[in-house]
Amino acid sequence: MKILVVNGVNLNLTGKRETGVYGNLTLDEINDKIMAYCVSNGDEVRFFQSNVEGEIVNALHGAYLDGDVDVIVLNAGAFTHYSYAIRDAIAGISVPVLEVHMSNVHAREEFRKHSVLSPVCKGVTLGFGLGSYIGAIAGFKAQKENV
Amino acid sequence: MKILVVNGVNLNLTGKRETGVYGNLTLDEINDKIMAYCVSNGDEVRFFQSNVEGEIVNALHGAYLDGDVDVIVLNAGAFTHYSYAIRDAIAGISVPVLEVHMSNVHAREEFRKHSVLSPVCKGVTLGFGLGSYIGAIAGFKAQKENV
Amino acid sequence: MKILVVNGVNLNLTGKRETGVYGNLTLDEINDKIMAYCVSNGDEVRFFQSNVEGEIVNALHGAYLDGDVDVIVLNAGAFTHYSYAIRDAIAGISVPVLEVHMSNVHAREEFRKHSVLSPVCKGVTLGFGLGSYIGAIAGFKAQKENV
Amino acid sequence: MKILVVNGVNLNLTGKRETGVYGNLTLDEINDKIMAYCVSNGDEVRFFQSNVEGEIVNALHGAYLDGDVDVIVLNAGAFTHYSYAIRDAIAGISVPVLEVHMSNVHAREEFRKHSVLSPVCKGVTLGFGLGSYIGAIAGFKAQKENV
Amino acid sequence: MKILVVNGVNLNLTGKRETGVYGNLTLDEINDKIMAYCVSNGDEVRFFQSNVEGEIVNALHGAYLDGDVDVIVLNAGAFTHYSYAIRDAIAGISVPVLEVHMSNVHAREEFRKHSVLSPVCKGVTLGFGLGSYIGAIAGFKAQKENV
Amino acid sequence: MKILVVNGVNLNLTGKRETGVYGNLTLDEINDKIMAYCVSNGDEVRFFQSNVEGEIVNALHGAYLDGDVDVIVLNAGAFTHYSYAIRDAIAGISVPVLEVHMSNVHAREEFRKHSVLSPVCKGVTLGFGLGSYIGAIAGFKAQKENV
Amino acid sequence: MKILVVNGVNLNLTGKRETGVYGNLTLDEINDKIMAYCVSNGDEVRFFQSNVEGEIVNALHGAYLDGDVDVIVLNAGAFTHYSYAIRDAIAGISVPVLEVHMSNVHAREEFRKHSVLSPVCKGVTLGFGLGSYIGAIAGFKAQKENV
Amino acid sequence: MKILVVNGVNLNLTGKRETGVYGNLTLDEINDKIMAYCVSNGDEVRFFQSNVEGEIVNALHGAYLDGDVDVIVLNAGAFTHYSYAIRDAIAGISVPVLEVHMSNVHAREEFRKHSVLSPVCKGVTLGFGLGSYIGAIAGFKAQKENV
Amino acid sequence: MKILVVNGVNLNLTGKRETGVYGNLTLDEINDKIMAYCVSNGDEVRFFQSNVEGEIVNALHGAYLDGDVDVIVLNAGAFTHYSYAIRDAIAGISVPVLEVHMSNVHAREEFRKHSVLSPVCKGVTLGFGLGSYIGAIAGFKAQKENV
Amino acid sequence: MKILVVNGVNLNLTGKRETGVYGNLTLDEINDKIMAYCVSNGDEVRFFQSNVEGEIVNALHGAYLDGDVDVIVLNAGAFTHYSYAIRDAIAGISVPVLEVHMSNVHAREEFRKHSVLSPVCKGVTLGFGLGSYIGAIAGFKAQKENV
Amino acid sequence: MKILVVNGVNLNLTGKRETGVYGNLTLDEINDKIMAYCVSNGDEVRFFQSNVEGEIVNALHGAYLDGDVDVIVLNAGAFTHYSYAIRDAIAGISVPVLEVHMSNVHAREEFRKHSVLSPVCKGVTLGFGLGSYIGAIAGFKAQKENV
Amino acid sequence: MKILVVNGVNLNLTGKRETGVYGNLTLDEINDKIMAYCVSNGDEVRFFQSNVEGEIVNALHGAYLDGDVDVIVLNAGAFTHYSYAIRDAIAGISVPVLEVHMSNVHAREEFRKHSVLSPVCKGVTLGFGLGSYIGAIAGFKAQKENV
Repeated sequence: MKILVVNGVNLNLTGKRETGVYGNLTLDEINDKIMAYCVSNGDEVRFFQSNVEGEIVNALHGAYLDGDVDVIVLNAGAFTHYSYAIRDAIAGISVPVLEVHMSNVHAREEFRKHSVLSPVCKGVTLGFGLGSYIGAIAGFKAQKENV
Repeated sequence: MKILVVNGVNLNLTGKRETGVYGNLTLDEINDKIMAYCVSNGDEVRFFQSNVEGEIVNALHGAYLDGDVDVIVLNAGAFTHYSYAIRDAIAGISVPVLEVHMSNVHAREEFRKHSVLSPVCKGVTLGFGLGSYIGAIAGFKAQKENV
Repeated sequence: MKILVVNGVNLNLTGKRETGVYGNLTLDEINDKIMAYCVSNGDEVRFFQSNVEGEIVNALHGAYLDGDVDVIVLNAGAFTHYSYAIRDAIAGISVPVLEVHMSNVHAREEFRKHSVLSPVCKGVTLGFGLGSYIGAIAGFKAQKENV
Repeated sequence: MKILVVNGVNLNLTGKRETGVYGNLTLDEINDKIMAYCVSNGDEVRFFQSNVEGEIVNALHGAYLDGDVDVIVLNAGAFTHYSYAIRDAIAGISVPVLEVHMSNVHAREEFRKHSVLSPVCKGVTLGFGLGSYIGAIAGFKAQKENV
Repeated sequence: MKILVVNGVNLNLTGKRETGVYGNLTLDEINDKIMAYCVSNGDEVRFFQSNVEGEIVNALHGAYLDGDVDVIVLNAGAFTHYSYAIRDAIAGISVPVLEVHMSNVHAREEFRKHSVLSPVCKGVTLGFGLGSYIGAIAGFKAQKENV
Repeated sequence: MKILVVNGVNLNLTGKRETGVYGNLTLDEINDKIMAYCVSNGDEVRFFQSNVEGEIVNALHGAYLDGDVDVIVLNAGAFTHYSYAIRDAIAGISVPVLEVHMSNVHAREEFRKHSVLSPVCKGVTLGFGLGSYIGAIAGFKAQKENV
Repeated sequence: MKILVVNGVNLNLTGKRETGVYGNLTLDEINDKIMAYCVSNGDEVRFFQSNVEGEIVNALHGAYLDGDVDVIVLNAGAFTHYSYAIRDAIAGISVPVLEVHMSNVHAREEFRKHSVLSPVCKGVTLGFGLGSYIGAIAGFKAQKENV
Repeated sequence: MKILVVNGVNLNLTGKRETGVYGNLTLDEINDKIMAYCVSNGDEVRFFQSNVEGEIVNALHGAYLDGDVDVIVLNAGAFTHYSYAIRDAIAGISVPVLEVHMSNVHAREEFRKHSVLSPVCKGVTLGFGLGSYIGAIAGFKAQKENV
Repeated sequence: MKILVVNGVNLNLTGKRETGVYGNLTLDEINDKIMAYCVSNGDEVRFFQSNVEGEIVNALHGAYLDGDVDVIVLNAGAFTHYSYAIRDAIAGISVPVLEVHMSNVHAREEFRKHSVLSPVCKGVTLGFGLGSYIGAIAGFKAQKENV
Repeated sequence: MKILVVNGVNLNLTGKRETGVYGNLTLDEINDKIMAYCVSNGDEVRFFQSNVEGEIVNALHGAYLDGDVDVIVLNAGAFTHYSYAIRDAIAGISVPVLEVHMSNVHAREEFRKHSVLSPVCKGVTLGFGLGSYIGAIAGFKAQKENV
Repeated sequence: MKILVVNGVNLNLTGKRETGVYGNLTLDEINDKIMAYCVSNGDEVRFFQSNVEGEIVNALHGAYLDGDVDVIVLNAGAFTHYSYAIRDAIAGISVPVLEVHMSNVHAREEFRKHSVLSPVCKGVTLGFGLGSYIGAIAGFKAQKENV
Repeated sequence: MKILVVNGVNLNLTGKRETGVYGNLTLDEINDKIMAYCVSNGDEVRFFQSNVEGEIVNALHGAYLDGDVDVIVLNAGAFTHYSYAIRDAIAGISVPVLEVHMSNVHAREEFRKHSVLSPVCKGVTLGFGLGSYIGAIAGFKAQKENV
C-alpha cells in the first residue's frame, strides 16, 4: 500500500510550540516513527507539509492525477475548520482521505469541534498524538483486509 | 493490556439491519476478529453489550471499581448523541475510554455529528467499520508505547 | 393483519394523571377498545408497555426478529422527544411503525413539538385521544388496501 | 356527520406531479374513495380546492357562518408552512379542523416539518397517502363516539 | 385629509370570532365609529377589506396611482407576519401607511410579535381595540399639524 | 382622566441631539403641547423624567401606591430594550401603561425592534414624533369611551 | 424555443416606484426589449403578471398542462422569500424555471438574501436590471446548445 | 469590451472530477467556448486560474491597477463561501465583478447557499454550466447597452 | 412529614469520583447525615438510587400510587438535562418534587445549565453539597409552616 | 454567623403586587420571619433593599470592604437576568453570595430562566417563597458545619 | 487637548479585587499615571467614576452641554455589555468617545466579547492594563495630528 | 524594543481603494510615519505585507524562531474574521501580538465585528487610522514600563 501523509498549517512547529498539547516530538521525529511502522507492515509512505492552503489542494490533486497513492492521511491543522477549498479537493479525487488530529479536538475550544472535512473523508482518528496517524492506517488496513 | 469492548443500543442487530451502512458481519463475528487481533498483540479482551443506558453506566462503573481493565473501547450507538449519564460515568472513572463508530457519522444525518461523549473520551476513531475498533486500539497502544 | 401496540414511559398512569389532558380511561380500558375495533376488522392485536427505554428497543427488535408482526403502533410518550436509541431501532427494522399521541402535542409545550421519531416512522396520528390509535390503524389499512 | 374536505395549493395536480411522493391517483379519484368510505359510515361529505390562500380562508369562514358542517378535513399543501392567515381562520371558527398530509412531511425537506396550523387544529394525520384523510375521519369519530 | 382604512385577512369576522380578544363590535360597527370620528375632525374616510393578499396589494397600488388618498390606515391581520408582498407594496408607494392592530400582539403568541411591515410604515398603534385606528389617525394628525 | 407622562433615559436631550431623528422641539416644548392637548380634552397631566432606571421604577410604584393616576404614558428610551426591572414594575401595578416612542424603532437598528416592556403594557404607539404621545392618549380614550 | 416570462407581485409598478433600485423602464418597456432580443434569436416569448400568488401557481400549472412552453423565466418579486406554494408548483412541473431578479438582492435587506425558490429552479440570474431576464435566457440557451 | 475570466480553487480539475455535477468539458474546453462567444460579439477575453486565495486577490488587484479590464467574471469555487479576503479585494477595486457558478449551488449542500462575495459583486449567474459564464456576460452587456 | 430522597445516575459513585467537585463523603455517609437532620426535626426519610432512568420513573410513580410520601427530594444527576420521561413523571404525580444538585451547575459546563425538570418541580436548591438536600427540606418546611 | 440579606428591584412591593405569585406577606413581614429564624440559630442578620442597580453594587462592595459580613443572601429581582454589573461585583468580592428567588422562575416566562448571576454565586435556592431565604441559609450552614 | 476619563461600575475596586486580572494598582494610582502622561504631552485631564448607570449618562451629557471637553476616554465596566442607555448617550453627543478595557475581554467569558458601545465610539483599545487608557489617547492624538 | 509590523491581505492597496474608509495615505507613507514614531522612542521597526495567508503564518513563525522580535503589530485585514491558521500561529509562538485595525470595525458590516484572532492576541486597538498602530505600540510600552 502506498501512503501519502499530508500535514497542514502550523504543523511544522510541532514539538516547538504548545508542547503541553502536542508533545515534544518534532514533525520529523513523528514522521520517522510513522515510516518505521509502515515499513514493518510492508507499506510505502511519503510526507508533505505546507502552511499554504492552495499547496495542500495541489498536493491532493497531484496524488489523484499521478495515480500512485492508495490512501492519504491528512492532518490539515486549522484548515480543518473552514477550508471548503480542501474539502472540495477531497471530494473531487477518488483517493480515500483519512482525517487525523493529534489532540482530542472535542476537549478544546468550541471552534475545533467542527470539521468541514469529515463528511467527505473516509474516516477520522483523533486524540492519540502520533498514534492518531498510526491508528488511522491500522483501521483502514483492518477494514480493507477484513482484519 | 486488558481491554473491555462495550457496545451500546441497537448494536446487537449489527449484520441484521441496515447492512448498507454497517456491513454484513454480526456483532459476534466482529468480536471474534477483534479478539484475534488483540491476542496476536498479547492483549486480553472482554465484550459487553446492552440496549439499556443504565446498564452501560453500570458496566463502566464496574470496570473502574474492579480495577482490572486498562482501557475501554466504547461504541455507544445512539446514546452517543444525548446520554449525559454515560458522559458523566466516563468522566467519573479513571480508566481511559476510546469512542468508536463503525460508520462515518459525519457523512450521515445532522444529529449524528454531535457526540456528548467525545469531550471526556481519550480519543475517537470512526468510519472504518470493524476497523474502527482495531484502529482505536492500535492508536492507543502506539501513543502509550511511543510506537 | 397482526398489530403490536407499544406504549412507552408514563403511559401506565393514563387515566390516573393529568386527566384534563389524557381523559379518564385507563390504559387497560383503552386497550380493550382498541382490541374490539381490531377484532371487528378481523385483525389481531397485542400490547406492550414499559417505562424503560431499552425495553422498548428490545420489543421493537423482537417484533422484527420474530417476524410475526405486520405493523407497530407506537406511543413512545416523552421518549418521542430525545430517544435516538428508539429512532435507530425503528430505522433498523423492516416492520412499519406508526407514531401516535393522544393529545395534540403541537398545542402544548414547545419541546413536545419536536419528535425525533417521525422521520423514520411510516406516518403520524395525534390529537384524537384513543382515536389516535384507531385513526392510525384505519389510515394504514386504507392506504394498504387502497380503501 | 357532515364533513367538508378542503384541499389547498397544488393539490389539483395530484396524480400528475411527483408521483413518487404522492402516488398515481388524481384528486378526483381520491375524493371518490373518501366519499365511498364516508357513505359506508353514514356520513355526508363535500369537497373544495383552491390555489388561492384567500379562497381557502373564505371556505373556512363559510363553513362556520353557514353552520352546516360538523368537521373540516384540511390538506393545506404548502400553505401549511407559512399561512398565518389560514391559522387565524381556523382559530376563529368553532368547527373542528383536522390537518392531513398525504406524505410523511417529517421525512422530507426541513421546512416541511413546521406547520403553523397544527397548534389550532383538533388533530393531525400524515404519511398514509389517501389513508391520511380516512384515518383522520376514523380517529375523530372514534374519539367522539368513544369507539 | 383623505383617509383609506384597509383591513386584511379574517377581519371580516371581527365581532363574530374570538370576542374575548377582539370585542363584540362587528367590522361595520367599527367602521361607523371611525367614520364618525373622522367626520367630526373634518376628514374623509373610505374602507376596504379583503382576505386575498394580492387584492390588498392592488388596493395599495390603487391609492397611490389614483392620487386621491393622503394616508392609509392598515390592519393587515395575519399577513402582517409574513407578507413581504404587502411590505414591498408599502415601500413602493409614496402614500404614508399607518400599521394598526386591535389587540396587543406582543402579549400573545410569539409569531405575532414580528411584523414584516413595520420597518416600511410611518408608524404603529396597537392594543387599543378600535381605539388603535383612531389613535393612529390622531397621532398622525398631531405630528403633521405640530398639534 | 389623570395622566402621568414618564420619559426615560436621554430624553432630556431631545431637541439637542440627533435632531434628524427626534426633531427640533425640546422636551419642555413637547410637554407643553401635550398639556395643551390634554387640557382641551378636560384631562389633567403631569410629567416626570430621569436617566436613572431605579427612579423610573420608583415613579411607577408611586403612581400606583398614591392612587391618583388613571393612566401612564411611558417613553422609556433605551431602557425599553433591556430593563426587566421596569417591566416588572409595570406588571406589578394596576395602573395601565401606554408605551410610546417618537421614532419608528422598527426602521432603525436591530436591537431597537425588541421591547421587553410591550408584553405587559396596555398598548403601543410609535413613529409619530410628539404625535406618539397624543395618539396613545387618543387611542386609550377612544377605547375606554367606545369613541 | 417557446419562453414564458412570469412576473409576480408589485412588478406591475416597475418604472413607477423605487426607480433608484429598479430603473425608469416600465414593465411594458422591459417586455418589449426582451421580446426584441428573443425574436432576434428566433425564439417565441409570452408574458404574464399577477399580484395574486395563486394566479402565479395557476400560470405555472397551465404552462405544464398545456405543454406549449419550453422554459419559464420567473421574477416572483417578494413571493421569492416565502411562497412555498410557488416552490411546490415549480417542483411539480417538468418545465425548467429560471429565477431572475433585477436588483442584486444580496446587497439589500437581509430577508431578500433568502429564496425559497432557488433549490427547485434550474438556475438563477440577478443584478443586471432587465439584463437579468436576457442573461438567463442566454445562459440557458448556451448550456442547451453547448454554445 | 475587455473581459477577464478568473477561476478559483479546484476548477482546474473541471471535467476530471464530479462530472455528474460539473459536466465532462475541461476548463480549457470551456474557456475555448467562452472565447468563441466573446469574439463573435467583438469582445476580448483573457483567463486566469489559481488554487491559492492570495493569487486570486493579486489578479483582482492587477486588473484594477493596470486599468485594462472592463469587467471580471469570477468563479471563485469554494472560496465563495468564506474568503472575506477576496470580498474585500472586489469591494476595493472599481472594476465590476460578475459572480458565476456552474452548478445550482442552492440545490446542493447547505454551506454552498451562502456566498460572502455576492453583496459586493455587480450580479450573479448560476446553474447553467458553462452557460453561467456566457449568461453573465450577456446580462451585463444587455444592461450596459440597454439591450 | 414523610420524605423520599431519590438519587439518579452516577450518584452511587459520590465520594469515589471527581472529589474535587462532589467532596469525599460517600452516598451512604450523606444519607446518614440527611437522616440525622430529618430525625432531629421529627420527619421520616427513605432513600432510593438507580442508574436506570425507567426505575427512577417507577419510583416516582410508586410514591404517588402508594400515597405514603409527602415530598420527594430528587437529585437526578445527568438525567436532569434531557429526561423528558422523568419530567412527565413529575408532572403526572401530585407529590411535590424538590430538585437538588450538590454542585453549582451554573458554574460548570454549558449543558449543565439547562434542566428539563425545573419547570415541573416545586423548587430548586443547588451548590451547597449535601447542604443542598438539607436546604431544600428546610425551605419546603419553612414555606409550609410559614416558618 | 453574620448574614446580610439584599433585596433588589420591585421587592419593596412584595405583598402589594401580584400576590398570586409572591404571596401576601410584605417585605417587612418576611424580614421579621427570617430574623426570627436566624436568631433562633444564633446568627445575626441585617437587611438592605433598593430599586437602583448601582446601590446594590455599592452594598455588595461595602460588605466586602467593611469585612463584617460572613455571607450575603441576594434576591436581585429582575436585575438577575441582565445585570452584569452586579455579577462583576459578586465576582470581585470574597464574601460568598447565595442567590434566591421566591417563585420558581423556571415555571414562568422564558426570560426568567436565565440568570447572569448564578455562575458567580455560591449556590441557588428558588421556589419556596420566604422559605427560599431560609433554605439558602440552612443549606449554607449545613455544608459549612458538615451538618 | 481637554480629556475626560470616565470609569464605570466596579472600577472603584480596581487593585482591591481580582488582581490577577486587573493588577495591583488602585484606580487613584492609575489616574495619577494617566495624568502624568497627559501633562507631559501638554494635555489637561479630569476623572469621573460611578457605579450608577444614570450618573454615567449624566456625565456624558454634561461634557457635551458644557462644551469644555475635546475627547472622552470611557471604561464602562460591565455596562459595556448591555447599557443601550449609555450607547444612546454616546450617539447623542458630538464629543468623540474612546472605549477602553484594561483586560483582553476577548480572552475571557463569552458575554464580555460583545460591546453595545463600540459601534458608536470613535475607537477601541483593550488588553494593555493602564496602557489601554494611554494607548487610546496616543492613538487619537496620532490620527488627529497625522503623527 | 524590536517591533515587527505585519500587514495582511488587501492592505497593499491602502490609499488606493475605499479612501473614505481608510484615508489617502499609502501603506508606504503610513509605514514611514510609524517608523518616525518608533525611532523617536528609540525602538526599531520592520515591515512585512502579503496577500497570502500562509506567508503571514510563515512570517509569524520566523519572528519566533529567529528570536529577534519583541512584539508584533498585526493588521491581518480580512483574514481577521476566519483565519484559524493565523490564530494558531499566534497561539503557538511566544512573541506577543497586538491586533490593529485602521477603521472601527464595529461600526461596519456585521461580519467585521468578529475576530478569530483577538482571544490569542495580547491586546487590540482599532478605529484610529494609522493612529491604531501607534496607539497599540504606545499602550504596550506603557504597560511594560508601568508608564
